[in-house]
Amino acid sequence: MVEKETRILNAAQIEKFVLDVLLKLELPEEDAASVARVLVAADLRGIDSHGVARLPIYIKRMRKGLINARPHRKLLSDRGAACAIDADNGFGAPAGEEAVQRAMEKAKEFGVACAVVRNTNHFGIGAYYAMMPLKEGMIGLCATNTSPLMVPFGGREIMLGSNPLAIAVPAGKRPPIVLDMATTAVARGKLELAKRKGEKIPTGWGVDTSGKPTTDPDEALKGGLLPMGGPKGSGLAMVIDILCGVLAGAAYSNGIGSLFGDMDKPQNIGNFFMVMDIGFFREKDAFAEEMERYVDLIKGSAPAEGFKEILMPGEIEWNNTLRREKEGIPISAPLQKELKALVDELGLSVDWLQ
Amino acid sequence: MVEKETRILNAAQIEKFVLDVLLKLELPEEDAASVARVLVAADLRGIDSHGVARLPIYIKRMRKGLINARPHRKLLSDRGAACAIDADNGFGAPAGEEAVQRAMEKAKEFGVACAVVRNTNHFGIGAYYAMMPLKEGMIGLCATNTSPLMVPFGGREIMLGSNPLAIAVPAGKRPPIVLDMATTAVARGKLELAKRKGEKIPTGWGVDTSGKPTTDPDEALKGGLLPMGGPKGSGLAMVIDILCGVLAGAAYSNGIGSLFGDMDKPQNIGNFFMVMDIGFFREKDAFAEEMERYVDLIKGSAPAEGFKEILMPGEIEWNNTLRREKEGIPISAPLQKELKALVDELGLSVDWLQ
Repeated sequence: MVEKETRILNAAQIEKFVLDVLLKLELPEEDAASVARVLVAADLRGIDSHGVARLPIYIKRMRKGLINARPHRKLLSDRGAACAIDADNGFGAPAGEEAVQRAMEKAKEFGVACAVVRNTNHFGIGAYYAMMPLKEGMIGLCATNTSPLMVPFGGREIMLGSNPLAIAVPAGKRPPIVLDMATTAVARGKLELAKRKGEKIPTGWGVDTSGKPTTDPDEALKGGLLPMGGPKGSGLAMVIDILCGVLAGAAYSNGIGSLFGDMDKPQNIGNFFMVMDIGFFREKDAFAEEMERYVDLIKGSAPAEGFKEILMPGEIEWNNTLRREKEGIPISAPLQKELKALVDELGLSVDWLQ
Repeated sequence: MVEKETRILNAAQIEKFVLDVLLKLELPEEDAASVARVLVAADLRGIDSHGVARLPIYIKRMRKGLINARPHRKLLSDRGAACAIDADNGFGAPAGEEAVQRAMEKAKEFGVACAVVRNTNHFGIGAYYAMMPLKEGMIGLCATNTSPLMVPFGGREIMLGSNPLAIAVPAGKRPPIVLDMATTAVARGKLELAKRKGEKIPTGWGVDTSGKPTTDPDEALKGGLLPMGGPKGSGLAMVIDILCGVLAGAAYSNGIGSLFGDMDKPQNIGNFFMVMDIGFFREKDAFAEEMERYVDLIKGSAPAEGFKEILMPGEIEWNNTLRREKEGIPISAPLQKELKALVDELGLSVDWLQ
């Protein structure tokens, strides 16, 4: 048997693949296109964990009836610069895109707008939604609560998700500033990697089941991740949980279904989005020029010993995108195998999955 | 000579003291009252560094002409749910209060609103402004850029302030959630304390002048503070700097005047405020009930070994306020001495400063 190797695909191939799979499963075309866009955006940015690699679990949940393939999204509230959407337990991406689109239209009218989404599912990378308003020169913000995996500061029970926050700001002729950060000290994937390699983890990444800091990745995987910066990350995760869970009317804290763990209940995730139209605060061209100066000032400052340069938020992902748009996106052999099993089950034939 | 001791004053005494000093210096009564309110709020919350202890440097800067005692604030922009204010280099508190007040009125009309302030000065604690909307059952957010004191992630030059973020959310019958956090790993005061005590500091608090992590507080005071959570705190500090500096049209990065260090130029700080009216997103009573459940759920979870309970964001400061409203606010002997020098210079007589 010939060992499979990593394959390089271009973004359009992956997007078409996701679209074909979802259309075969009878998703509405617009919803399928939305999921495909968001997953490919993650792959282009180099966030491989949130790209096409997420498709199998999405499909698995959908086929178990835990994600509604043909949802009827409902506008629960739509007044002034605010709106609230019930995603009817559909895929996270189309609900997220609709919410941002509505917030963008409102921001053009009022200068700022917020949209919340309840009853939704994993939506991919927050950066995608925060970046949508960039196309129209606006500032975007996106937050979501997630499957629980973190202990609160001072706690020993897993009560919080990684609850990430993403903010995107246009920067004139420079690449946009795109901060996309979880409120955990590190991603769970880093603990899994350390475990596989048999390495210890630094103090501050996780706790054992008694809530004590541990350097054993296996103990921390059982105990829980720690928030970044102690009470700061813990508090920020709670505020995000409140905006996405309580304000949006979704689940929160340990009430959220785990993407991989809970195969018997929907996730009921909540999202919070915000868009700002710069022109309502300051003349847009002046802002763009000042942003260029800002980026040049920070990037022009001296790096510390051991660093080559100061990186702006999102700069690595921006460069990944430029490179992967040209050179393609690597799909590992294990991922190919997983996707092959998926298409075989669906009776689909995909030329690059033989 | 009798050694002076710590004195306990009530909030009204401190508020009147600040007011008297500022009126003597011919601040408009409303502005003086605003500064007094904000400083006392910090003392009540137990944030002594930002209470009446800040009055001497405020006065010093004002008398040097670096703060404008009688500013004419100007509404630069006022459309829809957004507004921008030029504080005319006046005290930070009255400009901040005006901005939040305007955002509150707009949020009532549109569901969400933002206000930015340029050309302002140190405004005290962010929590005060984030908490203003609580009185009307609304959510508040406040951010400001500050005197530079932190290196960006991977840098060796001080390019960022502590750039704090404060968010306040009403929680029904429970105390409100009030997150108020700097984006530095720790406050500069902690390094100063370690230096005085001759103690080492943990890695991760600061760097020496080459940008290398150091455990010597003196080296770190010369080098710079580190952001919380590495690139996360660094990125968040930049985004806050952009909203407060670039979007508001104020100074940013190392262009901001240092409160204590730069006695030859105004600070030109910028602020960003946001207010949300819960009723535009979800029925207010349902939100309040759900918030009570949220607080009870998190606080009801098991503490880690070595912790007595899980504290919600702002819980310590809430309890401080309840206690200090009853038992009073301690004014240390060195602070009394400093305040005595101030009133002597102004020819004021204060009964508790003899």
